[in-house]
Amino acid sequence: MSSVLTPEQVLAHWQGHRRLTRRVIEAFPEDKFLSFSVGGLRPFAMQAMECLALAAPVARGVATGQWAEYTAPTTPDSKAALLALWDQATGEINAIWPTIPVHRFTDVDKAFGQWENTGIGSIQYAVDNEIHHRGQGYVYLRALGIEPPAFYDRS
Amino acid sequence: MSSVLTPEQVLAHWQGHRRLTRRVIEAFPEDKFLSFSVGGLRPFAMQAMECLALAAPVARGVATGQWAEYTAPTTPDSKAALLALWDQATGEINAIWPTIPVHRFTDVDKAFGQWENTGIGSIQYAVDNEIHHRGQGYVYLRALGIEPPAFYDRS
Repeated sequence: MSSVLTPEQVLAHWQGHRRLTRRVIEAFPEDKFLSFSVGGLRPFAMQAMECLALAAPVARGVATGQWAEYTAPTTPDSKAALLALWDQATGEINAIWPTIPVHRFTDVDKAFGQWENTGIGSIQYAVDNEIHHRGQGYVYLRALGIEPPAFYDRS
Repeated sequence: MSSVLTPEQVLAHWQGHRRLTRRVIEAFPEDKFLSFSVGGLRPFAMQAMECLALAAPVARGVATGQWAEYTAPTTPDSKAALLALWDQATGEINAIWPTIPVHRFTDVDKAFGQWENTGIGSIQYAVDNEIHHRGQGYVYLRALGIEPPAFYDRS
């Protein structure tokens, strides 16, 4: 099979996006993070929690084949508490990654017991979903008169 | 090198996202597509044109190593004209794809003469940038009272 991406590159790409999302979270004033909305969409805190509910659980599911049912996460009542969960997930994903047998990226599972996909497909879904919601966060920040962090900076 | 994605899977993932973005374009009323904005961000027509300015040129650059300079695209004055360009790019990307030598995904170029990246890195950037802008388009649609297409549907 022709290879265009290694597991290490997939991790680096994902964690680069997660660093950018962390900066978007930090850019929100606390009260706006928890409550501001445009067009009836969820506040960014709830969107970020959805990303967290996929992140480490997806890495763990791909690594082990064991998936818990997806449950809508409870959003913490402060930015600091959410950022602590974010950093915890960063460490978990990094720790899980080297334990993923390479065949698990192409094995097909029912992710969270319901979404049939390859391992890499479930990971791509989590990353894409985060980029999608973060793009919405950029609109919220602009509507609040706040300059968002640069999209291309993943450092 | 451990492989987690083939070139064919990268293309399928990209074109799945491009089909979804096409549906988002279609969901806008013509005048709102060309002019509606939240927070001073560009109208969705201009964001979609940026995606088009990256799409086929990135595939061509990765295939050939030849990159023109990036120039901000001119936005057509109708949704139909933009959708025609969208469909043309879909065909171009599909036609270019099988001509990409596999080593070109990992070769490093200066994309558009200025952004140093691997071939797959430039492709990921184009896809991620499209997801990012489309997420902003979802907010515009919601702010207009229009239900956006389902994020998970890439058919």
